[in-house]
Amino acid sequence: MFAGCPFKILEQPKFVYDGKWLKMREVRFRKSDSLPEQVWESVHRRTVPSSKPDGVDVLATLHKDGKKYFILIKQYRIPMAGMCLEFPAGLIDEGETVEAAGLRELKEETGYTATKVLSCTKGKQGLSPGLSDESVNFMIVEVDGNAPENKNPKQNLDDGEIIEVVLVECDRLLPYVELICTEVHVESMLYAFALGMNYAQHFL
Amino acid sequence: MFAGCPFKILEQPKFVYDGKWLKMREVRFRKSDSLPEQVWESVHRRTVPSSKPDGVDVLATLHKDGKKYFILIKQYRIPMAGMCLEFPAGLIDEGETVEAAGLRELKEETGYTATKVLSCTKGKQGLSPGLSDESVNFMIVEVDGNAPENKNPKQNLDDGEIIEVVLVECDRLLPYVELICTEVHVESMLYAFALGMNYAQHFL
Repeated sequence: MFAGCPFKILEQPKFVYDGKWLKMREVRFRKSDSLPEQVWESVHRRTVPSSKPDGVDVLATLHKDGKKYFILIKQYRIPMAGMCLEFPAGLIDEGETVEAAGLRELKEETGYTATKVLSCTKGKQGLSPGLSDESVNFMIVEVDGNAPENKNPKQNLDDGEIIEVVLVECDRLLPYVELICTEVHVESMLYAFALGMNYAQHFL
Repeated sequence: MFAGCPFKILEQPKFVYDGKWLKMREVRFRKSDSLPEQVWESVHRRTVPSSKPDGVDVLATLHKDGKKYFILIKQYRIPMAGMCLEFPAGLIDEGETVEAAGLRELKEETGYTATKVLSCTKGKQGLSPGLSDESVNFMIVEVDGNAPENKNPKQNLDDGEIIEVVLVECDRLLPYVELICTEVHVESMLYAFALGMNYAQHFL
């Protein structure tokens, strides 16, 4: 499984903790023969579909009455012990395509139905490659807010789940995340997207 | 520690695995009184400085002979079991500022010395808020490639560490990551940044 690895893997990877959703792995290796043995710990989802990424992040814009908004979500995250602002996202179910998962999660979490799929990334985009193998794809979609199915968007959340839908005007994304980022944890992908927009507008 | 949490936390968070670098945590909770008990597992770095993010990602552009490049790195990542393309980045040392860590990591990993710091984000940008509390800040810097200290950049890597510096022309970032993303894992922040640039150029 470590094809192309420039280091010397000393034994089969060992799962040292096996939880309900997550597993912790230890890999013993040497960077070269003359260097001491090291251990790399990492975390892996039990649900992982091997050929696909774990999840999908949906970059959705709402087009309504001549304005454009990013559709974002705000929710309390127990791992972070705080409120987080994120793109709508979720894990891909067994047998589900990336696109189907993205459309389903957008609908469940925000109530909106995508009216146009613009693109979906390939490969696996690692969320934190030094810590885990968790990965996503990004799907870019448009939502026509004046279409009948989007007139009264209704979330379809699990019992007790609380997700707030946040609409941010597209050309105001960076100022918005800059303003709230000390009160709410803005996920890194969303912040990086906003910085990329700003870079293209002002520095390219 | 769960101030503002809309769920009912049932007991003190429990660390169920304690590794060398990582810890696994279990939190038992109910979404409401009438709903069954659930458990949220998450992973936490042992090195975490509580008031700062764990790490810093450096968005660095190299300005050389009238052209502009993003300075990226490619390295084998044991958790992902594959090569990854990433922004230069690293953990913030005890007592170190975010900015100092960013400049240090850029120099160590790429050999380049930033000649101008444009900005640095505040708060904590979560890498994977459903799985861990790992977080970063983003620092944006410029590197004058014609400055004496950047004429012959030399990495300062740990023994046996192998990091390839990859320069990508700034206006070619999205086509580049789209092309290589099935061969190399492009980290989510870098891919999101590229999508943000493209969004601002073509859809705003």
